Order: sequence, then structure tokens, then C-alpha cells
Amino acid sequence: MSSRLKDVAARAGVSPRTVSNVVSGSGSVAPDTRRRVQEAIEELGYRPNLAARTLRAGRTGVIGLAIPELHSPYFGELAGLLVDEARRRGWTVVIDQTRGEAEAERRLLAQGGGRAVDGLIVSPWALSPAELAATAPAVPVVILGERSPQGAADHVAVDNVAAADEATTHLVRSGRRRVAAIGLQPHLHNGTALLRAEGYLRALNRAGLPHPPGAQQTVTALHRADGARAMAALLDGPEPPDAVFAFSDELALGALHVAHERGVRVPGELAIVGFDDIEDGRYSHPPLTTIAPDKHQIAQRSLQCLADRVHSPGNTVPPQELTVPHRLVRRGTA
Amino acid sequence: MSSRLKDVAARAGVSPRTVSNVVSGSGSVAPDTRRRVQEAIEELGYRPNLAARTLRAGRTGVIGLAIPELHSPYFGELAGLLVDEARRRGWTVVIDQTRGEAEAERRLLAQGGGRAVDGLIVSPWALSPAELAATAPAVPVVILGERSPQGAADHVAVDNVAAADEATTHLVRSGRRRVAAIGLQPHLHNGTALLRAEGYLRALNRAGLPHPPGAQQTVTALHRADGARAMAALLDGPEPPDAVFAFSDELALGALHVAHERGVRVPGELAIVGFDDIEDGRYSHPPLTTIAPDKHQIAQRSLQCLADRVHSPGNTVPPQELTVPHRLVRRGTA
Repeated sequence: MSSRLKDVAARAGVSPRTVSNVVSGSGSVAPDTRRRVQEAIEELGYRPNLAARTLRAGRTGVIGLAIPELHSPYFGELAGLLVDEARRRGWTVVIDQTRGEAEAERRLLAQGGGRAVDGLIVSPWALSPAELAATAPAVPVVILGERSPQGAADHVAVDNVAAADEATTHLVRSGRRRVAAIGLQPHLHNGTALLRAEGYLRALNRAGLPHPPGAQQTVTALHRADGARAMAALLDGPEPPDAVFAFSDELALGALHVAHERGVRVPGELAIVGFDDIEDGRYSHPPLTTIAPDKHQIAQRSLQCLADRVHSPGNTVPPQELTVPHRLVRRGTA
Repeated sequence: MSSRLKDVAARAGVSPRTVSNVVSGSGSVAPDTRRRVQEAIEELGYRPNLAARTLRAGRTGVIGLAIPELHSPYFGELAGLLVDEARRRGWTVVIDQTRGEAEAERRLLAQGGGRAVDGLIVSPWALSPAELAATAPAVPVVILGERSPQGAADHVAVDNVAAADEATTHLVRSGRRRVAAIGLQPHLHNGTALLRAEGYLRALNRAGLPHPPGAQQTVTALHRADGARAMAALLDGPEPPDAVFAFSDELALGALHVAHERGVRVPGELAIVGFDDIEDGRYSHPPLTTIAPDKHQIAQRSLQCLADRVHSPGNTVPPQELTVPHRLVRRGTA
């Protein structure tokens, strides 16, 4: 038995119109009321009647989600949250896997992937900020994970510079003096990686610590295998590090793997901090210290941004930069 | 610049009509030719013109994929492969996340999720085999990961009994005598878990080994936290095991985590075998011994099944049981 809009209204103690506004993202609803309605929606398992709504609104009821890789734990976790949040708002999600190919990203932004969608949530890997900024998207777009200052799209991310600074400073404060970084991707216009490198260098400079050539290991991808290769190169170098800041948990777990193989004690001889807070890192040996972006907020704010644009086509609010919180989670590796 | 059908034909040395047949899954194409065409499609990055094809065929160009959880590494890896394979055949994929809820699975099968799709690939968790068998799907359906003997749908899976037997026998042959299992889910109609339990018991019986009460730990979900709880219960029991067969790698990694916490040496005092071959297990400490299902074949054969049904609506071939290969991958834990 499925529940109806008026059941949700009764449970939340608001008018059916208010429920409708929350679901469609239209009208103005006080944050407290919105929260009450969303709780009632969850408790009752209410799902808006998509077909009817689409008919009324001339919309498709579908949004596109384009992420580089479904098999990456970070994107898997994020996609799960985005799909849940989209469903709560009456949208189903078409997922495109770009594999980080520039052509796939370009086509998506320009044509919505050749499909009828109300809007897109895109995590670009290959396109440069300049190209992103120059794109006039076919439908409203929210960009995840990369700053595009003069862009035509809303943008949701953590403060990557501050987060990387925090991770590096944590290593410095625990007495580490040869702090390496793993994660720059010179072949990609990976703005996120550049911002994390900036935060890393800022923290080292503030502490008056050197960052000799070779202390920043570049990678071709962000998988465990790339982290393992980079860690091996650092350990084989002239001055092995006593700490590593990895730009993703996958890279960090690859580095940890090589430390185990080489008999390097973690955290005794080598401290490691990752980035992403994937579940995997909570169960590694030792459990991984990491920067945890608030993924629930990334999902919620991305969908809210998209809803604001989709439901008010005349919306002239300039593109927004939304920064979601992060925190350093201290576990066993640093 | 995007490539055209005739470019693919030229590269593969076949007629455009043959390429068209391969893409649409219609007509009869020799396996060798099909492989050549698929390679040419990949090399040239060819994408069929969906809109035109849909118009011609009266189809939507969309298939639905319903999996319990996008954030599970196994389903994330599998979803990535399925999306790639679907794209190769000119389909885009709408992903539904059922969270293992019976109502969500029922609605999907009966109504295709309320959307226009050509077909569905579903990994059911909550519905019983009887209910699955009684369902008359709205569109062609391929069921993943669970046997439904009298079902109305094609079915793609590994031989779960044989695979579990192999995992358990590997533990027995290495001299283990108190082999526990983690993964039964009594609250779910999880046919997969029941089949794995059957294989586990078959191997123990063949070896003449006991399976005392308590040696099979039930779980409420298949996450690392569940594996950790089950392992703790086994270690706190009257007769701690010297080996564990976990029905998923996530469960196995949770068990490994607890072994580290308690100072139980792996594999010295405790051997562990998982199931799924997720990337995570390749980098754990020690790396995880596991059963590897051939995920590429699961993706390919599922899409082939679906294409066969969708492109031949009059198709009266009875539902098929397709078994994909698996293998035991020996790493560090057993």
C-alpha cells in the first residue's frame, strides 16, 4: 500500500501544498518545515506520482548523473546517496559513466547525453576549467568536485585547499618532517588535485618544512594500484618520507599495501592520511586516517541546486559556489 | 568527431548491415565476426544514434538496472561493467537502488519502475523465489545472482554451490578442522546465501568434518560491520574456528579487521576465504583469498539475454539458466 501526499501532510502537520512545494523544490519553505516534511516522506515511504507531475510540468522526471567510474568506492557511495536523494524529490536517475573521457564529458554537457533530462549532475575529470566555463549546457547543470570560477553551472565541493592543509598540518604536528604527497595528475585538468596540492604546499611552507623534488608523486589514475606504484617510488627514492598525504583513500590504501609488503611500520615509520572517508578505510589495517567530506550534504545540496534551476526556468541567480563541510577523521595510520 | 556506422564496418571488414545487426542484437552473426565488430566499435568509440534507432524500432533505448546498493563494492563494479556493456549495445541505463526492500523489487518487476524501459536487469534481495516465479514482468527481465527455477525470467549467476564447496574444500585441504561460515541471512529470501551454505556443508560432509551449532554465523546485512560482528561472536564462542568462509568479500574484510584487533594471526591461527573478488581485497593485509565470479561475463551475458528478448518480441525460448565461470583466487589469507 503506497501512501499519498495528504498522508505526508497530516504526518508533518502541514498543508498538502507545502508538501508539494518541498517535493518539487518550488515555493519557499522554512528549513524546519522542510525537514519535517522530508522526515514524513521517509517514514511513510511516499513516492510522488512521477507521470502525473511530468505531464503537468512538461518535464521528464529524469536527471542525468555523470561520474567517471561507478566502481570507485567514493563515486559508488556518492551515487547511492544522490539516487536516494533524487528519488525523494521524485526524480529517477540515468547514470552515465564517462571513464574520464573528454569527449564523453563534452557531449554530456552540450547535449545532455542525447536524452531528455531535466538536468545534470556531473563530476568532470578531463575537461579544463576554461572549457567547462565556456560550455553553455543544454539543461541546468550542477558540477561536483571541481571549482569552475567563471562557469555557467552551480558547483558543489568541499574546500579542497583547506582540507589538504589540515591533513598535512596534522602530519607535521605529529612530528613528521619528510611529508610526501601522492595524487597529482599532470595529464588531466584535475582542478581538485591542484587544489589539494596547493593546500599541501601551504601547510609545508607555514611549517618551514622542505618539499624537495620527488616528494610529490604524480599518478595516472586514482586507484589502489596507482597509490602502490607511487609509494614504491617514494620508498626507493633517495630520501624516503616519514609521512604521506594521499589525495584519495584508494591511493592511500595502495600506499599502505606497499608499506606492509616492504615491512615499513605504519604509523611508526610512516604515517598516512587519505581523502574521501570510504568505508574500506574504516576496516583497513591499521584503519585509515582521512579527510571526510560530508557526502550527505553533497547529495542534498546538489539536488537542491538542480531543483531550484529546473523548477524556475527564468531563474537568473548567478552560478553558485556551494562549499560543504569536511572533517579530519583520526584513525590508526596517522 | 564521432565515427559513423560505415567507419565501423570498414574497420571490421564487414557490411554496414552486419554492424547494425551486432549493435541491435538482431539477425544472426558469427561469433568471430561479432567480436571483430565489437572491437572496431570500441576502437572507434562509435555510439549508435539512439534517437533514430528508437524511432525506427518503437523502443525507448533505455534499460533499467535494479541493484540493492550502489555503494557496495561488488555491485559498484558490476554496475560499471553493465553500464559499459549496455552503452556498447546502444542502451542507456536507468539505475534503481532497491535497498533490498521487497516493495521496491515488486514494483520494479510489475511495472518496470513506472518508466518506459525496454527491459530490466534485477538483482533481487527481498523477494522469495516463489514470488519471483509468480511475477509476470511488464518487460523482458534478466535476474542476477539468484536461482528462480520456475521463473518467468532469464537468470545469470555463478554456480554458487560449487563455488562455496571449492572455497571450503580449499580450507579443509590446508589442514583446517574448525571451519565456520559467515553470511546466512535468515530474514531475507536470499537464495544465493542458501546455495553458498549448501556448498559449504557439502564440503564439510565430504571431509567428514563437524559443523557444530554456532559455526554458521547469520548476518543482517553483507557489510564489513556485519562480518566484524559475526567474527567477534565466533571468537567469543566456546570453540573459536581456525578458518572462516565468508559469503562476501565485505564480510571477510570485516572478519579480518576483528582478527587484527584481537591479535589473531591471519592466516596462521585463522584462515579466511571471501567471495566476490572486489578490488579492496587485493590490497588488504594480508590480501584476501576469494572466489572470483567472472563479472565481465555476467555483464556480457545479461545484456545478450536481454537483447535477445527485446529484439525478438515473439521469442518463445523458455527462460534460460546461464552459469558464468568462477575461480578460486589464492592470496594471503588462506
